[in-house]
Formats: sequence, C-alpha cells, structure tokens
Amino acid sequence: MYFKNIFTRRRFISSAAGTVAASLLAPRHGQALSGAPGGADTFTPTADWKDEGVIDLSKSPYAKLKTVPIRAVTIQEGFWSARRATNVESSIPSMQRELIAHGRMDNFLRLEGKSSAAQYGPVYSDSDIYKWTEAVGFVLQSEKDPALQHTADTMIREVVAAQEPSGYLNTYYVGDRASQRMLPKTQEMGHELYCIGHLLQAAIAYYRATGDTTLLDAGIRFVDGFLLPNYGPGPDKKPIVAGHPEIEMSLIELYRTTGNRKYLDLAGYILQGDSRIPLKQQQIVYMFCGVPFTSRTKLEGHAVRAMYACCGATDYYLETGDPAYLKTLDTLWTDLYERQMYITGGVGARSQGESFGNDYELPNARAYGESCAAIGNMMWNWRMLAATGDARFADVIERALYNGINSGMSLDGKTYCYRNPLAFDPTGFAGDWHTPPGKIRNPWYDTTCCPPNLERTLASLPGYFYSTSKDGVYVHLYDNSEMRWRLDSGNAIQLTQKTRYPWEGNISLHVAPTVPEVFTVYVRIPGWSKQSTVRVNGDAIRDVTPGRYLPIRRQWAGNDVVEISFDMQAQVIHANPAVAADTGRIALQRGPIVFCMEQLDQADSTPQDFPAFSASPTEKTQSRYEPNLLDGVVVLTHPGAVGPAPSQESLYQASLPGNANARSTSLQLIPYYAWANREPTPMQVWIPYEPS
Amino acid sequence: MYFKNIFTRRRFISSAAGTVAASLLAPRHGQALSGAPGGADTFTPTADWKDEGVIDLSKSPYAKLKTVPIRAVTIQEGFWSARRATNVESSIPSMQRELIAHGRMDNFLRLEGKSSAAQYGPVYSDSDIYKWTEAVGFVLQSEKDPALQHTADTMIREVVAAQEPSGYLNTYYVGDRASQRMLPKTQEMGHELYCIGHLLQAAIAYYRATGDTTLLDAGIRFVDGFLLPNYGPGPDKKPIVAGHPEIEMSLIELYRTTGNRKYLDLAGYILQGDSRIPLKQQQIVYMFCGVPFTSRTKLEGHAVRAMYACCGATDYYLETGDPAYLKTLDTLWTDLYERQMYITGGVGARSQGESFGNDYELPNARAYGESCAAIGNMMWNWRMLAATGDARFADVIERALYNGINSGMSLDGKTYCYRNPLAFDPTGFAGDWHTPPGKIRNPWYDTTCCPPNLERTLASLPGYFYSTSKDGVYVHLYDNSEMRWRLDSGNAIQLTQKTRYPWEGNISLHVAPTVPEVFTVYVRIPGWSKQSTVRVNGDAIRDVTPGRYLPIRRQWAGNDVVEISFDMQAQVIHANPAVAADTGRIALQRGPIVFCMEQLDQADSTPQDFPAFSASPTEKTQSRYEPNLLDGVVVLTHPGAVGPAPSQESLYQASLPGNANARSTSLQLIPYYAWANREPTPMQVWIPYEPS
Repeated sequence: MYFKNIFTRRRFISSAAGTVAASLLAPRHGQALSGAPGGADTFTPTADWKDEGVIDLSKSPYAKLKTVPIRAVTIQEGFWSARRATNVESSIPSMQRELIAHGRMDNFLRLEGKSSAAQYGPVYSDSDIYKWTEAVGFVLQSEKDPALQHTADTMIREVVAAQEPSGYLNTYYVGDRASQRMLPKTQEMGHELYCIGHLLQAAIAYYRATGDTTLLDAGIRFVDGFLLPNYGPGPDKKPIVAGHPEIEMSLIELYRTTGNRKYLDLAGYILQGDSRIPLKQQQIVYMFCGVPFTSRTKLEGHAVRAMYACCGATDYYLETGDPAYLKTLDTLWTDLYERQMYITGGVGARSQGESFGNDYELPNARAYGESCAAIGNMMWNWRMLAATGDARFADVIERALYNGINSGMSLDGKTYCYRNPLAFDPTGFAGDWHTPPGKIRNPWYDTTCCPPNLERTLASLPGYFYSTSKDGVYVHLYDNSEMRWRLDSGNAIQLTQKTRYPWEGNISLHVAPTVPEVFTVYVRIPGWSKQSTVRVNGDAIRDVTPGRYLPIRRQWAGNDVVEISFDMQAQVIHANPAVAADTGRIALQRGPIVFCMEQLDQADSTPQDFPAFSASPTEKTQSRYEPNLLDGVVVLTHPGAVGPAPSQESLYQASLPGNANARSTSLQLIPYYAWANREPTPMQVWIPYEPS
Repeated sequence: MYFKNIFTRRRFISSAAGTVAASLLAPRHGQALSGAPGGADTFTPTADWKDEGVIDLSKSPYAKLKTVPIRAVTIQEGFWSARRATNVESSIPSMQRELIAHGRMDNFLRLEGKSSAAQYGPVYSDSDIYKWTEAVGFVLQSEKDPALQHTADTMIREVVAAQEPSGYLNTYYVGDRASQRMLPKTQEMGHELYCIGHLLQAAIAYYRATGDTTLLDAGIRFVDGFLLPNYGPGPDKKPIVAGHPEIEMSLIELYRTTGNRKYLDLAGYILQGDSRIPLKQQQIVYMFCGVPFTSRTKLEGHAVRAMYACCGATDYYLETGDPAYLKTLDTLWTDLYERQMYITGGVGARSQGESFGNDYELPNARAYGESCAAIGNMMWNWRMLAATGDARFADVIERALYNGINSGMSLDGKTYCYRNPLAFDPTGFAGDWHTPPGKIRNPWYDTTCCPPNLERTLASLPGYFYSTSKDGVYVHLYDNSEMRWRLDSGNAIQLTQKTRYPWEGNISLHVAPTVPEVFTVYVRIPGWSKQSTVRVNGDAIRDVTPGRYLPIRRQWAGNDVVEISFDMQAQVIHANPAVAADTGRIALQRGPIVFCMEQLDQADSTPQDFPAFSASPTEKTQSRYEPNLLDGVVVLTHPGAVGPAPSQESLYQASLPGNANARSTSLQLIPYYAWANREPTPMQVWIPYEPS
C-alpha cells in the first residue's frame, strides 16, 4: 500500500458554547428579501453558481486560463487524498473545537445576548471563524457532508445575527471600542476590512458549495450598506487603507460572483491607496498598501500582507488588463524568485515584523516562512499562472504546496506550524510572539491565522489541478484524479490520472472528450525534471522542455492515453552564492519534494554532533519507499561523514576546515513536509558538505 | 615610518550653548563642606588618589592582580598612540560639539534657567555627558591639558548646578515627569540609576585625574542624600531594580574610592534583585537584573546590560570573595567563549533587543555586535583577569580591543559604528532603530552611548597594559610603552617595551627595578601564537605555552632584557561547525588582528560578484605593510578564485556546488578594524572556500 487511509470518525460540536437555539432557520438562498439592513438587497444565486472555481475566472477578460470547479475534480486515493482526509476527518473538526474553546464564537454570541463571556482574542479573531468556514465551503464543494454543513450553517447564522442594522459586523469594535471603527489608525492595524475580506471569501466558497447566500448577503450588506456609502474616493466619503491587504481580492471575487462592477472599482481604489490617510514610510513598507500598488518595486515588509496584496493586484489585472499592474507584478515576482524565496516555497525571512529580509537574506534556523505566507505565495502564483499560462508560476505553486505549505499541518492534522524554519534545534528555538520556545507545531495559536488557512488550502486543492483555455486544457498538478468538465467549445471531457506521484515519476493520463475534437492538452513539465518523456498512445512527443507546458495539439478521441515520465533522480541543489546562509551547504530534492535530515534518523548520533554531519556532494543518492514511516514516505540516503561532536572549547580554531577524525556514514533524509512529527530533534534542509 | 602622527589642533567649545557664566568656581577638592544638599558631606581626597587605576584594586582582597595607575604608563609612538591621538585630537572635541549641538548640555542648563530649549534626547541622555567626561578624566590621567580640563570643569559645574537639594539629579524626570521618578516602571526602563552610575564613573575618573571632587560630591549626594535613605532592603525603604545594569560596578568603585562599605552593600543588594518589584520572565532576560545574579546560567537578553551586570558581579566578587559569584561568572564566561562571541570579540547577535541569540547564533551581515557590548566584554574580562590571573581573559581583552572595539571608531575619529557586523553590503543594509540604512559609521546617534564609550576606552588604555601581584608584575598588552610603578615590596620598577606589534611579533622588554629583587615577570603568550620564543638576556626560557602567562622568576637587576617573539604567520581560522553562519567559510587572522575583504580592494571586481569570491584554504597567505593605506596597515593576500557574478535567474540550481568558470585571483584583506573607512563597499570577514 502506498497510501494510508484515515478512518477517524468526524465529530463536530453542533452547538457553539452550548447556547444555540435548537431550531435553525432554513437556508434562504433564492429568496429576495428587500429592505434588508443597510438597504442592500439579498443576492439571488446565478444559474451557473456550481461552475465557479476556487476563484471564478470564467468571465475574466485577461485570464488566459479559466478555473475548473472544485466539484469537477475528484482527487482519488494517493498522496493528497490522505492529507485531504486528515484535513476533513481531523483538522477541521479539531480546529472547530479549538475556535469554540477559545471564545471565537462567543464573540458573536455575546452580541446576541447568548453568551456572557468577555471578548476573546486579538483584533482579527473574527477572521478565524471565516477562514474555517471557507475551508468547510471548499470541502462541501467536493463532497456532501450533512453534519458538517449543519454545523457550518449554525455558525453562519450565529455570525450573521451579530451584524448591526447598518451592515457593520465586527465583534471587536463594539461597546467602548465602537468609537474607533474605521478611524485611520484602526484601519491601519485594526483588521476590520481584513476580517470582512475573509467573510466574503468564506461566503463565496460556501455559496459555491451550497447555493446558500446567508453569509454572502451579510457580506454584501457590509459593503453596500456600511462601506460604500461612507468610504471611498471623493470629497463626500472618508478614505480607506487596507491595513492588512485581503479586502482587495475578496471584493474582486465578489465582483466575479455578483457581476457588480462597483466592487471591482472599490478594490482598484484600495489598491491605489488614498493619500488622505498619510502613512509613514515604515508603514508603507510593512503594510504593503496605502500607496499605488504600481509604485512598488520590491517585496518588503510583512510577507503575508505583501502576498495578499499581490493576489489582489493580479485579480485586478485579470479583470482590467491594466498593463502597469502586470509590469509591477512581473517585477515583484522576479524579486521573489531570484532573491527572496526559500527552496521550500516559503517566504518571509524575518521573525521581526514577520517580514521579508534583504536580498538573499534567507536564514535557515531563523527563517520565519509563515504558513500563511507560503499559502499567499501559492495563491498569487495561481493568479499569475491564469494571467499568463507560464509554467514558471506552476513550478512555484508545486514547490510551495508540497513543501512549505504541506509542512504547516502535522501528519495527524491536529497541530500546525506558524513558522516553517529550514533548520531547527529544539533546545535552541527561543520562540517568538506567536510560537512558544522549543515547540514548532502547536494545536492553537492565539493568532490562529495559519491553521484554517492550511485547511482551506487542502480543501480547495482539486481546483488547482487543471485549467481550460480557448484552445484546450492544462494539466498543472499530478496525482490520481479525475476531471469531468467541459472544453471551451462546450464539449464535455474527462481527464483521468493514474500515478504514484510524487514518489514515482510515471503518470498515465487518459483524455476522453465526449465528442472527438481538435484541441491542445498542455502537459506541465516541471522545472526540476531534467529528462522527461511524453508519449501519446505510445508515440513519443518531441521538444519536451523542463519548466514549460508541453502543448499536444491533435484530435483527441475518447480513449487516448498520454504517458508521462519525469526524472525522479534525487538532485543535489546548491544555492546562489549570494545566499550567505547556504554557503558550503547542499540540499537534496527528488521530484517536487525537498528533503531534510532529522537527527533521530541518523545512526549512532546525538543532538550534540548533529552540526558535525557533512554530505559528499559528488556521490549518488539512493531512495526507497518506507510505507510505515510518517504515513508513507520516500527516504533518501546519501553518503557523508560525521565528525566527533564540535569542540566545546573554542568557537574558533586556527586550522584548516574539515574534520580528519570524521567517519563515513550514510545520511538519512525524509521529506521536509514530514519533519517534526516525531519526538523533538534537530533538523536541517541545507547540509554542510566537504570535498570528497 | 610605521605610525602616523596626527597634528590636528584640538578645539573645544568652552561654553555650552553660549550661556555659561564667565567666572568659574575653583576646584574644591580637599574642602570639607558639611551641610551639603541631602545631608551628605563632601569627600576629602585620599592621600593616594593618584595611585588608583582604571578600577582601583589596591585594597581588593580577592584581586590576584592589582591595577596600575593610568598615569604610571606611557604609551609611546606606535599602534595605539595614533589611535589615542585621534581620540584626543579629533574624537573627544568633535563629540563635545555634537553633544552640545544636540542639546545634551541644554538639558542641564534649562534646569538652571540658562537655556530655554526643550528637553532633548532619550531618557538616558545625561549619561552621554557623563561618559564623555569620564573619557576626559582618563585623558587627564595621562597628560596635562589645561584647555580640555577647563572645558570639562565648566561642564561639570553646569551639571552639578542642576542637582536638586534632595540630591536627585536627572534632567529627564523633571517637571511633569517628576512624579515618575524611581517608580518601579521608571526604574525598569528609565535609566535613572544607569545615568548616576555613569556620573559616578566619570566623577571617579575625573577625581583620579585632578583630585577635584566636584562631580564626585554630586554623585555621593545622590547616593547618600536621595538613594540610600529611601531605597534599598528593609520594610522602611522602597525596592530597587537596576533596569540597565551599570550602577552596581559604579557603586563598588565608589566603595573603593571612599572606603565606605555601604556602597558595596547596596551594590550587592541590587545584584541580588528585590522581589518586591515583580518582573516578567522576558524582563528578567532582557534587563539581566532583578533576580539573584547567582541564579543566572547563561548570557541572554540585551548584550550591554548582560556585560555590565557581569562587570558589577565580578567587582562584587573581587571585594567579597563570594564563591557563588565566581561560579556563576565562570559559567557565564564559558557560555560567552564557547557559544556567543564573534571572532572580533564582539557580542550580541541580534538587532532585535540588541541581544544575545541562541547558542552558536552568530550571523555575519545581521550581527549586532554593538560597540558598547564589545567594550563591556573587555571590561568584564579585565575584572576576571584581575580575579584569577588567567591569560584566557587577557586573550579576550586583546581580541575585543584590536577588533570589535577598535572598529567602532573611524580612523579620523569623527564617526562611529553602533553595530559592528562581520559582513556588509551598503545597498542591502536596511539599518535599524539606531543606525540609518546603508550607513554603518555615523557622527551622531540619538542614542549616543557608543561614541563616548569608545573614547573612554581608548583614553583609559594605559591602565590595561600591566598589573602587579604579590610576587611580581604582569605584562598583558604589547606596544611601545613605559611603566614607572612599584612592586608589591614598594621597590620602584620601570618596564619598557620596544616593538612594532601588532604588525611584527618581536618585543624587547626592559625590566628595571630600582633595587635588584627576586620577583616574577609574567609574560603573556597569546593563545594565537603557536610558536613563541622568550629569552632573558639571551637565554631561552622553556615551557612557553600559548594562552598562558609565562612566569619568569629570577633576580631582576636594572638592565635585564626580555626578548619575546610571537608567531606572526597569518592563520586560516575555521569556526565550530555549530556556527551555521560560518559553514563553508574561513577567516584570516594574523597576530591579534582579524582581517576582512572589502570589495573595492579586489581587482577587476564589482559589488555584484563579491559573493562569488572564494579562498583556497590550503594555500599560503602573504603579508605586507602598507604605510599609506588606512593610516598604515598590514595587508594580507591569499590565493582564491572568483566566479562570474551569481546567476540572476534562480536561487537554486540542481548541480554540484563550485564554479567551473571561476578564475584564479589573489584575495586582498585589510584589518577588520579599518573597514568602512573609504567609499561604501561590500565587506566580509568570513570568506567562502572551495576545495583546492
């Protein structure tokens, strides 16, 4: 067996804090309630609401690629099915319990007189509930789950009941704090619009799952009833600053969902910044908003803010085609790819300000690499891929997904990384504002942004496998899966993958349009696959180039088979010499998976001698699949040496480097995403090497 | 000529802010003014005030070594004379102008009705004046300088005139802020006692220079009149927390100066902490005070605070012999030496909190290495050396002095490093709270702790060259110099060094007691000198061991010559493998001098290809003296290679490390202390190496 099934029974708390009324309102999608609070009408589902993807690019004029609905893709038993089962069976229910135990629902219930608890959590605590709800929305786009839906329905109604008649909804800025609402200072750090952005994304995901507009109507009431009449451009309105970018992409998704252009325009205004809210340079850097997005020349400041801003800006380009946006996005992406990204796809070098560092500043043990930032990186690259069809963006998506994102959730789905360092010493890890000393995976963070973010990412994953275009279909990701969707012509098509990816490099792709048709199947050749072969019905296709989509244009009938073979030889990677942290070190990657050494896997070693391991870079790596290790992983072994533990006498020795007393050994490596799932132990991705 | 003389004329501003009364009070040392403010008497100079050293250990029962007065040692033309001339001719006068221009004297004058300026600078701004005055005090212990003394006298009187009748003296906590005086929160971060500590150190240095007790009386009035009656142990007094350690060592120096044990006891109480001021763990770590010093097990938190606390604790041991202190100090020193110190003697890895990092966390470009922390390191090791006579402490003093301290002041003496990184890129240096982006040397910092700290260190340097002991005399540092002092027997002795140290390794030491006597001359053999020879009147001495004092016990007459020869072969240094930042890198050291590469010295190179330089560690280093470069330095050349500039295309390449297209070159290195004295250019101490 390559893949582990998880049969844990799901258990949800059906009543938040035990205070929910027993009878619940029925969903009211399709209703047309006029005279709703704030004067906004409720939204009537469109005819094609079930066809909308993770983001809905079906009508986006500058999207070269169109998203495929999550429900159109079934991920079958394989690598991601196990992780996704863990997400649904363990992570989402345990996180719901944590959210309730930490008062995140009480914050709403209190405003409805159903809880006497005090306000809990930081200013952005409402977003925890929304992101969890968005994860549920994505789950329900893949599968029916009445119990989960019932739970979410309940929570949604409890959320909506806390909305004020004005449309305002935020459980922090109430009571004595109500006077601070939307003041410039509050907008800068208060996360009101950040929370509403997450509400909108949750509402849209839930609507796309169920057709239920309850939460969506609440979001529209906030925007139409409270925000738009009072805030925006023009002398009669007050200015907006995003503070923490998020509202931009959610407003554009609301535009895509409703067709109402005012949301796109508002997003454009926010992306432009409003000089009526004067900001210090430090704030402009940190918040990555408040000045024209198109004035940006590098990624800087808070990494999640920067990634989310780039998502919103790319969404804006996809709808408007504004070339200044594309130029800026290209500049920023180059900065990311050439100077700021970890080999894991993680971003954000510094704990201080959770921020990007200088060019090439990519420390390993001190890496921040917040899970949310890696997710933001994937979300941004997904939008860039849609805009361009360029496989370099898909390479980044795959790198982040399999490594820097996948590392964020433990194998049992119950603990999470806030930060994702590339080296670790449990006794030396001092912790920070969010993460306690020595503990990298935790079930709860008071700023619990990352856990539900990981959940929504895994839940939405089917939506990232394929795209369609005017001339065919794109295959982005590889795993056992089935797509049932339609070509641009309307011709129904089924794509089926059979593979043991990422552990093996062969994929059998069945292409079955209902009616034979000439179109192009774009097969992604990952940048890491130096030698790939692609055959259609046994005939080799030429010009297979790493890091490109291989376009196979022909008349496809119902039983064509594309056989793909990628180069799964483990690779020794070295970093650009400008990355000082990686000088004298190599990393090992096999397929899309970045590997790491954990000390407990190294024979006859102690935590003290872990720094004395070195690799012999010119020798061959061996790989083997270990079905019983870490839910089933490929393990790499690589020749190396280990010296005596470093001298405890002096930091500096006047002698040549290298250790004459080192003994040969075989380094054992596991996938990076699976690290820290056993007892605490030192870890490193980048391994010192010695001349062989 | 090996050494440059600096003939700049000194110019001082004789009147602060132009408001000083023309007639000044005469010094009043020797006066016995009873009924002074706060009820304290003024101090009558002791008979032997001219015999007191940098710290006065003449009566310290647990000092194995006794300090030699600064005035007893003359540093003659050589390495340090040039730096010390710059200090007196350029640095001290230009810093005085900066202090006055930035209102540091106005703060005092305002309280006397002589300035209408607002309060200037941070809470600790008074200490800037005190540290500068202390520097002047040390200068005046070496040489007469009536103009400088007149300037300092004026400033001292202006300071003292601001003292309140209660004895309280602080220009920040006045007016509306007076109610915050000595509140627990103010003690934690308000630096009142830190400022008084520096006042006491300045007062004592000035007293030891001139016999003038004006400032000393003010310090005693604060302690006797304000502090001791109201604060300290016991239910009738309020508790003290140091906040920023400094008061401890200064109170003990006050004890040494006055013989009044209550100051030692108060220091002991402060070193013990007072649980009536409850502190968070984070504060205990950061402030390095507030809990019993003897409960500490590692260096952590703010590096300067930790170093100053260790100074105070060692002073306490020197007076009391409390073995728990010595045990703790030994534990902390081992932590410093084995896990926390840069090769430059700098300490403090992190900008955030100006703090120590984890074990072995010693980043190069991001190193903090505050000048004050390196000075604190030297001051602490000086005390440990006195307590033990162990040469390992002298090795650290020399390392810090020649490198991480000496780097802190520019060659022209007019600009200063707050932080002292071991790698630098002017375009990538983002700056921090104190240091502006891209500029590592600045004439002024609003927190201007480092500049006068550097000045007092250079001014006091003669006091660090020699010690006496019961059985003889110790030679710690090497430079052309003359000591005229006395042995423990009272027999007068003259020691004379002739050398071109640190550029050459030969020292001729003339030992001339007035009366022939059997005693031991302890000659320090630096840890870095693998092969040393020592001859007395031509006869070789055996058992010369690196990192030890070589004891030469014999009857010394008036014309004995010790010829010392140290190993000046440049050494390739590698770091403990646990220092991840130095993996795959070497450093070069020659004698006590640590070297670095500046890009502008590398032929045919650009800032962009600087990371592509590598050294060939097994090849020989050449050295040559360059009299016209950087005021005269030895330059090292070392075989290496330089590749094309790092690829701008990808951070990560699947290929073996090393650069097949690299061309051979000769790396050019200058002393680290002299870096950043020309146009901005990238720099590194730790150089990547490739297998040769």
